Amino acid sequence: MAARFGFEVLSENGGARRGRLTLAHGVVETPAFMPVGTQGAVKGVTLAQVEALGAEIILGNTYHLHLRPSDALIARAGGLHAFMGWSRPILTDSGGFQVFSLAGRRTVSEERVVFQSHLDGSECWLSPESAADVQARLGSDIAMVFDECVKWPVTRDEAAAAMQRTLRWATRGRARFEALSSGTATDVTPSNPGQAQFGIIQGATFKDLRDESVAGTVSIGFEAYAIGGLSVGEPTDVLYDLTGHTAAQLPPAAPRYLMGVGMPDDLVNCVARGIDMFDCVLPTRNARNGQLFTRRGPISIKNAQFAEDSRPADPDCSCPTCRAHSRAYLRHLYMAGEMSAAALNTVHNLHFYLDTMRGIRKAIEFGRFDDFKQGFLDAYTRPQRD
Amino acid sequence: MAARFGFEVLSENGGARRGRLTLAHGVVETPAFMPVGTQGAVKGVTLAQVEALGAEIILGNTYHLHLRPSDALIARAGGLHAFMGWSRPILTDSGGFQVFSLAGRRTVSEERVVFQSHLDGSECWLSPESAADVQARLGSDIAMVFDECVKWPVTRDEAAAAMQRTLRWATRGRARFEALSSGTATDVTPSNPGQAQFGIIQGATFKDLRDESVAGTVSIGFEAYAIGGLSVGEPTDVLYDLTGHTAAQLPPAAPRYLMGVGMPDDLVNCVARGIDMFDCVLPTRNARNGQLFTRRGPISIKNAQFAEDSRPADPDCSCPTCRAHSRAYLRHLYMAGEMSAAALNTVHNLHFYLDTMRGIRKAIEFGRFDDFKQGFLDAYTRPQRD
Repeated sequence: MAARFGFEVLSENGGARRGRLTLAHGVVETPAFMPVGTQGAVKGVTLAQVEALGAEIILGNTYHLHLRPSDALIARAGGLHAFMGWSRPILTDSGGFQVFSLAGRRTVSEERVVFQSHLDGSECWLSPESAADVQARLGSDIAMVFDECVKWPVTRDEAAAAMQRTLRWATRGRARFEALSSGTATDVTPSNPGQAQFGIIQGATFKDLRDESVAGTVSIGFEAYAIGGLSVGEPTDVLYDLTGHTAAQLPPAAPRYLMGVGMPDDLVNCVARGIDMFDCVLPTRNARNGQLFTRRGPISIKNAQFAEDSRPADPDCSCPTCRAHSRAYLRHLYMAGEMSAAALNTVHNLHFYLDTMRGIRKAIEFGRFDDFKQGFLDAYTRPQRD
Repeated sequence: MAARFGFEVLSENGGARRGRLTLAHGVVETPAFMPVGTQGAVKGVTLAQVEALGAEIILGNTYHLHLRPSDALIARAGGLHAFMGWSRPILTDSGGFQVFSLAGRRTVSEERVVFQSHLDGSECWLSPESAADVQARLGSDIAMVFDECVKWPVTRDEAAAAMQRTLRWATRGRARFEALSSGTATDVTPSNPGQAQFGIIQGATFKDLRDESVAGTVSIGFEAYAIGGLSVGEPTDVLYDLTGHTAAQLPPAAPRYLMGVGMPDDLVNCVARGIDMFDCVLPTRNARNGQLFTRRGPISIKNAQFAEDSRPADPDCSCPTCRAHSRAYLRHLYMAGEMSAAALNTVHNLHFYLDTMRGIRKAIEFGRFDDFKQGFLDAYTRPQRD
């Protein structure tokens, strides 16, 4: 158990939990949304802007940072926090999701995954042990164990095989993490002695496989547990059903992290099912494509209807973009190809996500989460996705 | 004379002047540098970042804004300040420089310049009167009169013809400006009743033509005067010589604006020659190309020598980029193609320019401008340009 890791459930409201996560670089109030900082930067904005928006933890990608600028270089700089100039908590993924996305450019064996770098085609590999090593060098506050992800749809046999391999890899990854944390392994020097490691539940959309994955992963023992392999194309009702089913079996004393989810209404619906932590590229990626989230649903700022619209992106929003700028100006910047379009849109979308989490936390504290959820879902019009 | 325009020389130090410019949207301490906001945005950064850096005035481009989103749309939004969400002063150029840069896509007559839009090839035109109209709709604090620019090198006859046409156009542009300001012309409603208009001195590198341009332009009478047609390729000593020669003849009671200049050492050397206002794309454009200005001269952040350099871009700098980030991180962001590379580099370069102006102003106040200039030039290594 990492020395500085702690989690406290402050209050509960049905399945929803209001908690406080203590990590080596600070406290994270939960339920929390983690902006994605793939290459050591949150796309479109500066870290000062991310900090000003109130993000308490961000995510970094092991795969990307391993390839460029390399975890060795980052370790020599003192770890990812020092390298980036970001002093709050960081979670790093294991690289698994990226590596398994490289279809046709990777070879999976029991020992490891060999893949070609998307940057220069050079041959690289990651294993449960090396993913732990890379993350130890990066020095994130939360490291994720190396897992095998499958796409949707998948056969039961494929899902079972990937889940069982994930369990075997979890045993190896945890052993390596413990050897690094305890100082038994001396060939890699961890940049952050307070790093925690989360296990990942797999099993696709098969509940009995999810159950087996939970039992096996919890028996290995991690600081906390994530639900992986969802939000990969399955219908929303399946996502919610599997999330609720899996979260209910996870140890209540540890935070539950739903990986890669999701749309704003997904956050609300999955908090209701016991999730404490989320990450997703949607607020940042969609901002760069001109989609702005609002309390009434997303709008596409490039639409001609906004050319002379003097209202802010979301009239109910207090973010720096909405306080200063009209939809007409944001549309102009987008159409003119100005970089600040991406920055202003990203500031707004991240604020929307982080503010939704603030609203969720406050609602749970006051025992009014059901009202909050109903009000949010009544106002929010979801675009077609499924 | 625009109602709210004022200029006061607070102190002088040799040729250098410490002044205060009062405009409809606020006060500008001079000597001042104006960041360029071509399309209603300073490239790479948000206006909140520009404001936080202490910029007291920015520049907008009449040509670009006329074409997109159009001065008519901006007027309906209440003018450029309201459209952009920027409450401090704005200067708009006349469009002349951009139009004359469209070699092969424009036809100049005494009446007007007909040109093809760089956006869609459609036929457009600007004249002394229409340039005043567009700027009245934009509602900038300072409008520039429409002039004819020539490239370097140019024959004496070409320079004389362009200078004399600029004088004739100045008479027409001023008459239109006064008709708009006084309400005699009612077909265009100015967005900013406190708008001032500056005349522009031409004459290329011929001192007698510059003299004739000064005499003619001053006799028409503008709130202040700009030196145009320099920094178009001529050697630096010619730029300095012509600047000093021309500035000395301009009315001392009005601010003097040197258009499109320049490198950091140009600012210092031209303040010494009596210049009060500058604009230039170099700090923003070069930032996007990875060039960072420092007190010892510019560095190219993409160079491999910075891959593990833990120092800030400029160790003597107090800007948000240098306070938070290392050269190694900035290089990583640049090499990884992250947008925040442009933002962080632009923040630094604009800070460097604005801070150089703060240093210049303080030095003049204390009667130590010569020492400041010598110290600056001794430390600053200029890259090859001429």
